[in-house]
Amino acid sequence: MKNQRIVLASRPKGEPKQSDFRIEEIDVPAPVDGEVLLRTLYLSLDPYMRGRMSDAKSYAKPVEVGEVMEGGTVAEVISSKHAGLSPGDIVLSYSGWQQYSTASTGLRKLDPSVGPVSTALGVLGMPGMTAYTGLLTIGQPKEGETVCVAAATGPVGSMVGQIAKIKKCRTVGIAGGEEKCRALIEEFGFDVAVDHRSANFAEQLKTACPSGIDVYFENVGGEVWSAVLPLLNDFARVLVCGLIAHYSATELPAGPDRTPDLMMRILRQRLTLRGFIVTDFADQASAFHRDVVQWIKQGQIKYREDIVEGLEAAPEAFIGLLRGKNFGKLVVRVTSEGQSHCAQGEPT
Amino acid sequence: MKNQRIVLASRPKGEPKQSDFRIEEIDVPAPVDGEVLLRTLYLSLDPYMRGRMSDAKSYAKPVEVGEVMEGGTVAEVISSKHAGLSPGDIVLSYSGWQQYSTASTGLRKLDPSVGPVSTALGVLGMPGMTAYTGLLTIGQPKEGETVCVAAATGPVGSMVGQIAKIKKCRTVGIAGGEEKCRALIEEFGFDVAVDHRSANFAEQLKTACPSGIDVYFENVGGEVWSAVLPLLNDFARVLVCGLIAHYSATELPAGPDRTPDLMMRILRQRLTLRGFIVTDFADQASAFHRDVVQWIKQGQIKYREDIVEGLEAAPEAFIGLLRGKNFGKLVVRVTSEGQSHCAQGEPT
Repeated sequence: MKNQRIVLASRPKGEPKQSDFRIEEIDVPAPVDGEVLLRTLYLSLDPYMRGRMSDAKSYAKPVEVGEVMEGGTVAEVISSKHAGLSPGDIVLSYSGWQQYSTASTGLRKLDPSVGPVSTALGVLGMPGMTAYTGLLTIGQPKEGETVCVAAATGPVGSMVGQIAKIKKCRTVGIAGGEEKCRALIEEFGFDVAVDHRSANFAEQLKTACPSGIDVYFENVGGEVWSAVLPLLNDFARVLVCGLIAHYSATELPAGPDRTPDLMMRILRQRLTLRGFIVTDFADQASAFHRDVVQWIKQGQIKYREDIVEGLEAAPEAFIGLLRGKNFGKLVVRVTSEGQSHCAQGEPT
Repeated sequence: MKNQRIVLASRPKGEPKQSDFRIEEIDVPAPVDGEVLLRTLYLSLDPYMRGRMSDAKSYAKPVEVGEVMEGGTVAEVISSKHAGLSPGDIVLSYSGWQQYSTASTGLRKLDPSVGPVSTALGVLGMPGMTAYTGLLTIGQPKEGETVCVAAATGPVGSMVGQIAKIKKCRTVGIAGGEEKCRALIEEFGFDVAVDHRSANFAEQLKTACPSGIDVYFENVGGEVWSAVLPLLNDFARVLVCGLIAHYSATELPAGPDRTPDLMMRILRQRLTLRGFIVTDFADQASAFHRDVVQWIKQGQIKYREDIVEGLEAAPEAFIGLLRGKNFGKLVVRVTSEGQSHCAQGEPT
């Protein structure tokens, strides 16, 4: 039995290309004592993966060239030498861009009765928890405040807007294109949506925020941040969660150097800017899960998944993600759930 | 009796010049019911006053052209129609750059037995409280961490370093010139001092911070900030308290635009940058006073005053302050305490 996997072929210069990835087939690994053999059902594709492809200093070490690409996965236990897991169990794992893997730790058994197991990679997973912990712990939105979020149809942004609405804030979503902006209002209940591809985006954003911005959830950077900055109110909180506009940049933008302008605004307006990685808030996992499961049941939180078929489609889908092409939580269906169940019967 | 005062003659373009100030003489005002007549003993000169000379949007409204320059003062009550104050009382007031003023509110009676009354403008006043509340509330230094402070011989910076030392941190002070750097070690007990005028300043700072920087107290900006930024540790706290390098800037520095670099560092290293104005922390005044009076008595806090003589010397002293020429808390002796006491006997 062969394991198809995708490895980093070369470190991208600028935007990643198909040739920066390589599909390989190797033997399926055999689990040792304490391990399970996993077959991947769903692979999560997320912007942070662009960081792992680079060897710039960051909060996590990079994927080495020739190594399998990292990523969160939902997988089925095929065979088990692990005391707590049995064949057929569905787990959240961090198996990366491949069909099969072995693991002994970092596994969480999923309850399929809660909802589609793929949600463990989205609304009930890392992106959902990023929105929840970031907005509530750092953003601390108060009733009546204006909460603005970039990349608002993404799995983090759409959740930020909906939680802010539950907290009785005015919500302003920024997204690219008319279709996404319509969905912000109709699907995710934002008060206003602003299209960052509009020629007069900065002006539209100003109009959309007549009382300024109290909490800004940054997922983008670049021109979006330039338009938000002048609208921040005194004591505004800026969560720096993602900067997708800069991940593939090969050089700094042309001058002048606007750093002093930013620093002067921080001082005069007593702004807080805080960088934020969800793994720093692992202790909030159970509160997150309890609240969000309830909000979904009550219809207060909606989510959208964008599922692409087959591991080999992952590189193109990831490249599209960085360009803002997808809509909703991007997930690769590596093995269909039915197929995997059948596979249990195979001799391993 | 005449009141000599200094008014804003014109809004400075770039660095303030003598001609941006004008000395005037007007009649001494007469106190109405509820007011005291004050004679200024000491006038505090502080970098924030540069902001008041400009009409750029800020946290406080600007001084208008033709108005008396604002400023904190220590003054003696000359005559009183105020229930709580009597002639001879010494008060902290906000009388500005003038010899006489009337006031009914914003006065705090000083106890001259605690120390020189001029300290109410420095170590026991606004600069001291800026250091105390900023460092302890926002910086939250932990034992063994490295605390770095810019403009470290100033009344804020020297206090930050000494409080950080009381909290068992490693303290790194940045100042301009050998004499100031020597004093940082010998007078204020910093562990290391680095001269930002050295040709290889950034390199020296790096050597001075072998374990990086956990808390940075920003009073300066510009090249100092550029040298500090790469040394910040994950989860570092940056208090943006002052940006003296930028107050008189008439344009942004040449490119490239380094904003994305700053934002990426905030994200990857989960930095917190927070702007900070002492008046937002007024509720900590009594804790500040209690702690600092005790620390001074125990010899754990030292301070230095730089006293210039006569109100007419204020503009030149203030221009020098912005250029880093003075050393210690800059105060103008407007009336000597003795003279003022004699003056009590005069008919008013």
